[in-house]
Amino acid sequence: MFHHSSKLQYEVRVDTPDPQFAKFLQQAIGGVEGEIRVAMQYFFQAMGARGDAKYRDLLMMTATEELSHIEFLGHAVALNLEGAPLSTQEEAAKDPVVNAIMGGANPRHILSSGLSAMPVNSNGVPFDMSHVYATGNIAADMLANATAEAGGRVLASRLYNMTDDAGMKDMLSFLIARDTMHQQQWLAVIEELGGWKGQLPVPTSTPEDHEAMEHSYYFLNTSLDEATPEGRWTSGPSLDGRAEYSVRETVDPLGQKPDLGRARPKSGAQREQI
Amino acid sequence: MFHHSSKLQYEVRVDTPDPQFAKFLQQAIGGVEGEIRVAMQYFFQAMGARGDAKYRDLLMMTATEELSHIEFLGHAVALNLEGAPLSTQEEAAKDPVVNAIMGGANPRHILSSGLSAMPVNSNGVPFDMSHVYATGNIAADMLANATAEAGGRVLASRLYNMTDDAGMKDMLSFLIARDTMHQQQWLAVIEELGGWKGQLPVPTSTPEDHEAMEHSYYFLNTSLDEATPEGRWTSGPSLDGRAEYSVRETVDPLGQKPDLGRARPKSGAQREQI
Amino acid sequence: MFHHSSKLQYEVRVDTPDPQFAKFLQQAIGGVEGEIRVAMQYFFQAMGARGDAKYRDLLMMTATEELSHIEFLGHAVALNLEGAPLSTQEEAAKDPVVNAIMGGANPRHILSSGLSAMPVNSNGVPFDMSHVYATGNIAADMLANATAEAGGRVLASRLYNMTDDAGMKDMLSFLIARDTMHQQQWLAVIEELGGWKGQLPVPTSTPEDHEAMEHSYYFLNTSLDEATPEGRWTSGPSLDGRAEYSVRETVDPLGQKPDLGRARPKSGAQREQI
Amino acid sequence: MFHHSSKLQYEVRVDTPDPQFAKFLQQAIGGVEGEIRVAMQYFFQAMGARGDAKYRDLLMMTATEELSHIEFLGHAVALNLEGAPLSTQEEAAKDPVVNAIMGGANPRHILSSGLSAMPVNSNGVPFDMSHVYATGNIAADMLANATAEAGGRVLASRLYNMTDDAGMKDMLSFLIARDTMHQQQWLAVIEELGGWKGQLPVPTSTPEDHEAMEHSYYFLNTSLDEATPEGRWTSGPSLDGRAEYSVRETVDPLGQKPDLGRARPKSGAQREQI
Amino acid sequence: MFHHSSKLQYEVRVDTPDPQFAKFLQQAIGGVEGEIRVAMQYFFQAMGARGDAKYRDLLMMTATEELSHIEFLGHAVALNLEGAPLSTQEEAAKDPVVNAIMGGANPRHILSSGLSAMPVNSNGVPFDMSHVYATGNIAADMLANATAEAGGRVLASRLYNMTDDAGMKDMLSFLIARDTMHQQQWLAVIEELGGWKGQLPVPTSTPEDHEAMEHSYYFLNTSLDEATPEGRWTSGPSLDGRAEYSVRETVDPLGQKPDLGRARPKSGAQREQI
Amino acid sequence: MFHHSSKLQYEVRVDTPDPQFAKFLQQAIGGVEGEIRVAMQYFFQAMGARGDAKYRDLLMMTATEELSHIEFLGHAVALNLEGAPLSTQEEAAKDPVVNAIMGGANPRHILSSGLSAMPVNSNGVPFDMSHVYATGNIAADMLANATAEAGGRVLASRLYNMTDDAGMKDMLSFLIARDTMHQQQWLAVIEELGGWKGQLPVPTSTPEDHEAMEHSYYFLNTSLDEATPEGRWTSGPSLDGRAEYSVRETVDPLGQKPDLGRARPKSGAQREQI
Repeated sequence: MFHHSSKLQYEVRVDTPDPQFAKFLQQAIGGVEGEIRVAMQYFFQAMGARGDAKYRDLLMMTATEELSHIEFLGHAVALNLEGAPLSTQEEAAKDPVVNAIMGGANPRHILSSGLSAMPVNSNGVPFDMSHVYATGNIAADMLANATAEAGGRVLASRLYNMTDDAGMKDMLSFLIARDTMHQQQWLAVIEELGGWKGQLPVPTSTPEDHEAMEHSYYFLNTSLDEATPEGRWTSGPSLDGRAEYSVRETVDPLGQKPDLGRARPKSGAQREQI
Repeated sequence: MFHHSSKLQYEVRVDTPDPQFAKFLQQAIGGVEGEIRVAMQYFFQAMGARGDAKYRDLLMMTATEELSHIEFLGHAVALNLEGAPLSTQEEAAKDPVVNAIMGGANPRHILSSGLSAMPVNSNGVPFDMSHVYATGNIAADMLANATAEAGGRVLASRLYNMTDDAGMKDMLSFLIARDTMHQQQWLAVIEELGGWKGQLPVPTSTPEDHEAMEHSYYFLNTSLDEATPEGRWTSGPSLDGRAEYSVRETVDPLGQKPDLGRARPKSGAQREQI
Repeated sequence: MFHHSSKLQYEVRVDTPDPQFAKFLQQAIGGVEGEIRVAMQYFFQAMGARGDAKYRDLLMMTATEELSHIEFLGHAVALNLEGAPLSTQEEAAKDPVVNAIMGGANPRHILSSGLSAMPVNSNGVPFDMSHVYATGNIAADMLANATAEAGGRVLASRLYNMTDDAGMKDMLSFLIARDTMHQQQWLAVIEELGGWKGQLPVPTSTPEDHEAMEHSYYFLNTSLDEATPEGRWTSGPSLDGRAEYSVRETVDPLGQKPDLGRARPKSGAQREQI
Repeated sequence: MFHHSSKLQYEVRVDTPDPQFAKFLQQAIGGVEGEIRVAMQYFFQAMGARGDAKYRDLLMMTATEELSHIEFLGHAVALNLEGAPLSTQEEAAKDPVVNAIMGGANPRHILSSGLSAMPVNSNGVPFDMSHVYATGNIAADMLANATAEAGGRVLASRLYNMTDDAGMKDMLSFLIARDTMHQQQWLAVIEELGGWKGQLPVPTSTPEDHEAMEHSYYFLNTSLDEATPEGRWTSGPSLDGRAEYSVRETVDPLGQKPDLGRARPKSGAQREQI
Repeated sequence: MFHHSSKLQYEVRVDTPDPQFAKFLQQAIGGVEGEIRVAMQYFFQAMGARGDAKYRDLLMMTATEELSHIEFLGHAVALNLEGAPLSTQEEAAKDPVVNAIMGGANPRHILSSGLSAMPVNSNGVPFDMSHVYATGNIAADMLANATAEAGGRVLASRLYNMTDDAGMKDMLSFLIARDTMHQQQWLAVIEELGGWKGQLPVPTSTPEDHEAMEHSYYFLNTSLDEATPEGRWTSGPSLDGRAEYSVRETVDPLGQKPDLGRARPKSGAQREQI
Repeated sequence: MFHHSSKLQYEVRVDTPDPQFAKFLQQAIGGVEGEIRVAMQYFFQAMGARGDAKYRDLLMMTATEELSHIEFLGHAVALNLEGAPLSTQEEAAKDPVVNAIMGGANPRHILSSGLSAMPVNSNGVPFDMSHVYATGNIAADMLANATAEAGGRVLASRLYNMTDDAGMKDMLSFLIARDTMHQQQWLAVIEELGGWKGQLPVPTSTPEDHEAMEHSYYFLNTSLDEATPEGRWTSGPSLDGRAEYSVRETVDPLGQKPDLGRARPKSGAQREQI
């Protein structure tokens, strides 16, 4: 069960409101790199967690923290919209700089939300929940979580560069820090479970005779004119310790030429196809 | 530039067509765990690749392979739809088993595509390109790719269990194998670049003074009644080698109680709010 | 800031798992009538609340409760999926009833989530956040909230009828009860603020000279052959107390015939249009 | 059956075309507060109306009016795009003000529609029909309709403030007026049917023994540190007249700690979860 | 302006209600081949029509007819849902055939709409307005309209085959007929304007020096092992009468190898990329 | 199976990078008029092709070419983003022109993709695969393809007008040329199969007794006050050669007044409806 306390997890201060930066911040709320995504992803993973219960707790606790991130970011958006012109034409006529800034703002912050945060990204596209990745496989989910946090920290760093506001920079430095921890905590689960040797290939429960192992460890060069890019993936022991990597330079199709024959009479095709 | 040859990358054989399994297979084409996603994700990452060109080549070559996976899976869907009833009522009246199977089929395979594959998942929801993750940061992208392949191999293993058809099992064992390789090749890039110590936190180019480091290495227990789940993430050296992990058992909000004051006159609020 | 405790808000018991009912329950999680929607709607309204702070608290407290509803519903979905066949073909061959049930199940509960809840509706369509209605106008928002809870209680009542499981009926009777309260608490805000007389028309802050009042209180009959449906809206004092309702039986278009003239040379039109 | 006459329902005049305002107006066409939504919502409610036929007629007549609103708003968008630069770079080079305005315009008004209206909102996001709320329950639907009209009038008022154009202000004053009527006509249906006492809780047809009435009339304070916000919803007779409101200050979870145990062998989990 | 009369454009009769067929019919309402799409597409094209006003009238009149098609199809869906079980478990226990049919039904017809039509397709995916194609170019739009009607008639024919109900077959035979007319009326506009010779390439207003004409009339064989498929497109005069078709058998890339160099310091990349 | 070679199909040169034009170009990648759409549409049509195999080859070869178009357009977007400010505030403070341009740019090109192409349109809306039209009927599909290419050439022509960059104009002139060919090759298939006389109405395989032919050849005037727009579609032989066109000036509804009666007790309606 969830509970709430009245203060924000971290202080939010905006020295100079900036409606365009309010739009940018939306990416950290409703973007695929944003906080709604991680809050919901960890929440749904926790609800479906099977196996050692501590991972369930780990997920639920961090889901709860991410809800608090949405909350302070939402406040930051509203503070950046303080004083935004509610009558664009007049202001614009007087001040081309304001006009230019408003051209880069999200009009729905005025028209739809009344100067507050929305669950959309920086293009105004609503977040959709298909981005909640939760497979029921702990290794796949931990990778998905590390991915989300890596994207999140890249975004927070870019936002940090896109503002001169000391308050905003302070808040973003907190987000950058928490993303550092969260990236690592999910990967630490994999480490604890034996690292790549123990956890690859995902899922480890697939019986070996379900896999055409002769195709499992070669890199396939599909280019007609480029040499294979050599690296850790072209030779040496595989990360899962089961085999050696190799390369197939020449692409030999292994299958047939597909042919579906003619269409059936009631299938809605043209007469010539039947 | 892309080219095509006429044979499929792998042979597709369906011994007993099954319209319901055709619907399931759609998840591997148009689901978030599917082949359109990886083909497009690697393609867009390749187009935006900066730094050592070999990673660009690696991405483009595998993008090209994934396009070929869409192709043979699409053929598999069509073969599973061979002979599907085009006049449901009549067949159903005769055979409740056929009726039950068709109840579990995707009606759009008959109504919309004329017995062939569609770019949708197993619920008939069209794939949308917001799932193409490409950040311009190589570590974030490699994690995203390993995530996609982990989800893909989990899916292929589940599909393998959901069919008795020897041809389909053979095709899926090839997919399982290729997902094994692809999972590892993306993680091998990270290994080659120094592993977690070299690549965390993502992005490594964020200056340290942009990060509130005092918040970067503690796990936050947000539960009111659960002990912290102890593990690799609660003590010992951090995966990035920069610090030691610790725990904050007590949650102290660091921020203010948010207060936006009263609404402005032209903001569209009710009178009482102004 | 959010916190979590380990027990569910309400007990969840499933006597006979039913994968088809798991699919139906998804409507209460990820449907437009579902709990993600209300949790996020009240949360975003709270973050944007201006005016008397008590309404902000009201919103945030109920948002927090709704998060707990997602949690126990998610558990209910997982319990209904216990024992679902992970190898459809075999089971189906043996038992047409199981086959029929699985035909009505969501295949992604097996293929994608590994037997647990997803943020999708009963058609498998992911929830998208455009359904979070938060205008910054308290009366509009309270109406939106009452709407969401009305839809929610209609849904919970229908779900109650669609199951024989005593545990599920018990859980749904709790949901029905809480929806009763939530419907009324949002409407009670409007009552407290003066009811329709005090709060209509929304927004009350619109100056009267922004409104063509001569068009504000007549019902427009746009039918060519139907009499006006008489009722509270065709005569008598208006709900807002500002005027009397009337009817316009004859539709007289007040505007011009639209004419955009010819296309401009560089507009991409055909030559004949220019 | 529908019919059309050649004049617009209301006159549309644009004194000074403004491509940025064309973008803003799109919110009133293809936004969730817009006219496509209400036209389609009332239409689908009418098609599903059961019970007294006069409500069906009421819905269909107003659906028809809303179609006419789309029509004159669409003309307004096109008129605001008259003269928009079809060759941005040149104009921008000459005039930074034009450039700034075009930066705030929707590029698809030039690239995709050829200077006319689109069924998208002010962010260019296409309207999707999941926003057509039609439950088959008349009270739920009337609330949904009042919500839509409240949002619509808030939007029209904000748009009124965002333009200096006398023609546009005149058209918007008509929209504001019609939204006044439409808000009230839907609520008047509820009044006619007995008001909250007669129509709550929605649905009224739910048998009382389907509801855990002991949970139906208390406000739940989920905050750890905030007092309950007192109001019409914390004491006194309930709006539906069935009970007295009360408060639960202390949150006692009523349920168990969820535990899904271990994963099944064929479920695609990692070995450690099984 | 729009008007409505009380009778349906065509009679709807359902002899034997069938909830599964109700689901199938949804494709004709809310699918991309459906009536919402054409109604809205012709409506938006009409609103943006420039040039000879008769095409605008043609579009608006047919848009109006399509609204009437939505109406009778919506009635057909509701009639097919008459008597559908509102308490699945009980009925299913008694009758596996009913169970199987309901497994193939849309659960939202019971849970969400209360036994009436919804603006979704046969998978329950809501229609989204991005499918309203309206370019402002009359030839492109007429092709889009013929496409929509071709898809519509294919769908109506498939639906005709999927039902034994005489009433439904009668209604669908009317739809098939109207789609015959509508396909042709849009193509007749192109005929009237000179056919392909007069209307290709679209747009005809593009100046010839904006086109690299040396690449305009050859078919490009991108296959490594297939001969060029010979046909009307490989030799002889072009449909637009401007040139002769030819073939390029060998694919010679005309461009450079793309290279974006290294990432910039503040771009959020990993250190190795900079 | 697909293959790749390292050079672009056509040379891409950007003389003056322009982040706003990068946003515009996105329409040609991820818009409904764009290259992802045609690549995937032709690919899925090829996978479902039945009848004469040469049309399958035609589709697959052009699908492959379109993939190469995505590739060079993606490079063009990245080149237009070279040098874009990664720290908006600073630059903007110095230069209002840069500020204005950035206001018109897509912020996700900086925040999300790190200065490279995304699979989104010029509003930042991700492409979704519901726009892949593939019916299994060759005439319907050829019309859909001609539509896509007509929209594509309209777009390319508009983009050509929106840039002064010689490199971009050169690249777009190539796209305009290829769209010329592609428009015609799909229509040439119809010509080869007998033109409209041979291929209408689509599908030609629908038996005549499935069609209410008395409704197949009249244009329906649904206007109350406009004369029928006379043209090729109102008289003379039909394009399919089966009949003569005529007109119905008076709209006589042929159907009943719809009436669904009262709601059923368990349907979730209000008491008054039952």
